[in-house]
Amino acid sequence: MNLILLEPSELSPAGALRLTGRRAAHVLEVLRPSVGDRLQVGVAGGLLGTGEVLALAPDSVTLQVRLERAPPPRAPVDLLLALPRPKILRKVLHAAAAMGVGRLVLLGSWRVEKSYFGSPLLEAGALDAELRLGLEQGRDTVAPEVLLRRRFKPFVEDELDAAFPGAQRLLAHPAAAGPLEALAPRAPRAVVAVGPEGGWTPYEADALARHGFEGFSLGPRVLRVDAAVPYVAGQVELWIRTGSR
Amino acid sequence: MNLILLEPSELSPAGALRLTGRRAAHVLEVLRPSVGDRLQVGVAGGLLGTGEVLALAPDSVTLQVRLERAPPPRAPVDLLLALPRPKILRKVLHAAAAMGVGRLVLLGSWRVEKSYFGSPLLEAGALDAELRLGLEQGRDTVAPEVLLRRRFKPFVEDELDAAFPGAQRLLAHPAAAGPLEALAPRAPRAVVAVGPEGGWTPYEADALARHGFEGFSLGPRVLRVDAAVPYVAGQVELWIRTGSR
Repeated sequence: MNLILLEPSELSPAGALRLTGRRAAHVLEVLRPSVGDRLQVGVAGGLLGTGEVLALAPDSVTLQVRLERAPPPRAPVDLLLALPRPKILRKVLHAAAAMGVGRLVLLGSWRVEKSYFGSPLLEAGALDAELRLGLEQGRDTVAPEVLLRRRFKPFVEDELDAAFPGAQRLLAHPAAAGPLEALAPRAPRAVVAVGPEGGWTPYEADALARHGFEGFSLGPRVLRVDAAVPYVAGQVELWIRTGSR
Repeated sequence: MNLILLEPSELSPAGALRLTGRRAAHVLEVLRPSVGDRLQVGVAGGLLGTGEVLALAPDSVTLQVRLERAPPPRAPVDLLLALPRPKILRKVLHAAAAMGVGRLVLLGSWRVEKSYFGSPLLEAGALDAELRLGLEQGRDTVAPEVLLRRRFKPFVEDELDAAFPGAQRLLAHPAAAGPLEALAPRAPRAVVAVGPEGGWTPYEADALARHGFEGFSLGPRVLRVDAAVPYVAGQVELWIRTGSR
């Protein structure tokens, strides 16, 4: 936890705040501040700032909060991700939030087990809690917008344009001809499609290609989705910043 | 498991092989092939090829192995990593092996808890088993060389040159002035230093800088090490391939 994330409703006009529960336990057991120390805080969806420790108790911490600056800009990356199994999804949610991904669509695919859509992790409260852990790690206050879409075809045919307006469409695909630098960035942000274990089916890969997703290869190795997502995001961010071809 | 990894000692001259245990269970329960199907196999440290299914039994699989091609080239990235806590280390070992990292030094640092060096995960058999899982994921046969060094200063002062010959030295550091593209690649590979949670101490960062590590920033966000490693590796690979500045 590199940031203590607060809800807007927790803040009094004067800025004093008493933390209890998980956040207080983390402050008391891991950060172990003294009275007068300043901790990094942020308001969900809002500003970053500091929380000066006013008082420490065995199970609570009182902070004087000063909000000072905007959160970091969004990363120029959105993700269209075949829904991974819950254990992997949790890591992907953390990483996506910590990296500042703009929008994350979790999509059904032929090779996505239908049961994954029943995971308790996908209930609104659970999803938000996981994203919050990622924001606390990444020192950001704005979570990716997460859309859950069970059916591949209606999403790709009817919703793509609205879901990722103005983003260049990329498909990370082992069988693609060239590496990322063989493509030219043509927009200030990109949406990257990352397939399920075993890959998109040929039908799905074709449908994405028909809808403007340009394939690029990550090389002969196959990364698990929780490693592939930061690997791809790192590459695409650098590629957008520097251009190529 | 995208590859069935075999030990050289398991292979008979004629190439027939009976799998049992973990690998057989994976083949029977997840891949569920028919007799005559070909599975991807590789020999640890050696070639990739196919294993034609000759026979299936309730707890074993007999393959006819044909070795055909070299494993993918090593990624142009080595890592100098402050030893993470065991739960994170396991993920980093998987990702490093799947990505084809050349050498991985796990280093002590002021902010690395001494107890981490006593983790059972660091015993030779356990470490190899984790790397093997990464190779099976990544479809490679060659694991990163892993060096474990408890003491920061002797390693940096006495061993660096031998550990990473010919590699450009980079330091992923939040406080660094510019992004990766502000640096120019000057070697065919790079070693990237990634600090502990909380970062290298100023003394450690200075010592790395004095020994030729050039800092670059990953931006205002702080990624957990298991996400930072693939993020950094993806960026550095693209940067080496395309150059900048």
